[in-house]
Amino acid sequence: MSKVKVAAFSISLDGFGAGPGQDLKNPLGVRGHELHSWLFPTETFQRMTGKSSGSVGVDNDFAAQSFENVGAWIIGRNMFGPIRGPWQDDSWKGWWGHNPPYHTPVFVLTHHPRADLTMEGGTTFHFVTDGPEAALARATEAANGKDIRIGGGVSVLRQYLALKLIDEMHLAVSPVLLGEGEHLFGGLDLPKLGYVHGKTAPGDGALHVAIRKM
Amino acid sequence: MSKVKVAAFSISLDGFGAGPGQDLKNPLGVRGHELHSWLFPTETFQRMTGKSSGSVGVDNDFAAQSFENVGAWIIGRNMFGPIRGPWQDDSWKGWWGHNPPYHTPVFVLTHHPRADLTMEGGTTFHFVTDGPEAALARATEAANGKDIRIGGGVSVLRQYLALKLIDEMHLAVSPVLLGEGEHLFGGLDLPKLGYVHGKTAPGDGALHVAIRKM
Repeated sequence: MSKVKVAAFSISLDGFGAGPGQDLKNPLGVRGHELHSWLFPTETFQRMTGKSSGSVGVDNDFAAQSFENVGAWIIGRNMFGPIRGPWQDDSWKGWWGHNPPYHTPVFVLTHHPRADLTMEGGTTFHFVTDGPEAALARATEAANGKDIRIGGGVSVLRQYLALKLIDEMHLAVSPVLLGEGEHLFGGLDLPKLGYVHGKTAPGDGALHVAIRKM
Repeated sequence: MSKVKVAAFSISLDGFGAGPGQDLKNPLGVRGHELHSWLFPTETFQRMTGKSSGSVGVDNDFAAQSFENVGAWIIGRNMFGPIRGPWQDDSWKGWWGHNPPYHTPVFVLTHHPRADLTMEGGTTFHFVTDGPEAALARATEAANGKDIRIGGGVSVLRQYLALKLIDEMHLAVSPVLLGEGEHLFGGLDLPKLGYVHGKTAPGDGALHVAIRKM
């Protein structure tokens, strides 16, 4: 059964899922990279960046699981790039180079239409302008029985949480205070939306928290 | 050197330090007691409630440390009781019976004057109507070189955080989603106020987080 899941999504102790002021130099917002310091040393991440080894253990287990059985991704336009407003041209192809780490169809939520963009390694970006439910319908079809991973950013997660469309969420609570940025849960009443917490597991770099829909 | 500290203060995964709707039946707000499920089984807490034993380990270590070297407490009026507005009479003497678990002077922040209230076991409640800085000055004098513990609730912690008067804070992040209640950090920019995170330690029932002033 295909699941809609969030995995390996990092938040700070004060609840921010990204720093403020995203731009070309700060893809995750100012200080946003600190949220992911648990992820970077893991073998899973190191291998994605061409290294031969990295840390193993709880953090790596969650990093590895986050990529298992994913048949399609949904991401927001700001996770795809720093450009705002209409696409000026097709030169921006994401942060990730010619061979992005998705290797599946990726549905990018945007208000501005753009042609499909096929990359190396099996990643195709599809730009969806008719909203999160339409994106999920297309991603579900593309996933062909595998899971749909909602990648982020914060705004996209909040939309899917509010629509009660997320089945499982794995958060990594990082021991960092950001103070400002994009708050994941502010103004969302998760229990009222039908979400409950599951298991927690401490890693070397973060506390891993499971949340699921009842 | 006397420190101003917060210790064993529990928050939910979504950042709430108390549930909504505090009243006589819900001293910690609705579902607020779930925040403290890491604390209740500990030997420290069990002994405070007259039992002979309880759990030991990381959670109990933090519970025990929270009471060490405390010379005075500061708490908010809502932590003292459910009554709002002027004191009708002196019948309310706190939630804790004749022998409260403080055993020191306790300075209660309130807008409504009331005479000192001396309890068994060394606890005296002093009602302070001239604000958090005045309460801290009195508590510091009363503590006589020992630490001042800011007990809560959320509003009181937020006031002292905003005033940059807290030296150390130990939070217990409980694996619970409350969805509503009193949010500890909302609207406060901790790094901008000069606070940084310190060590984290996973316990069986909560993730223990240290925050301190730079």
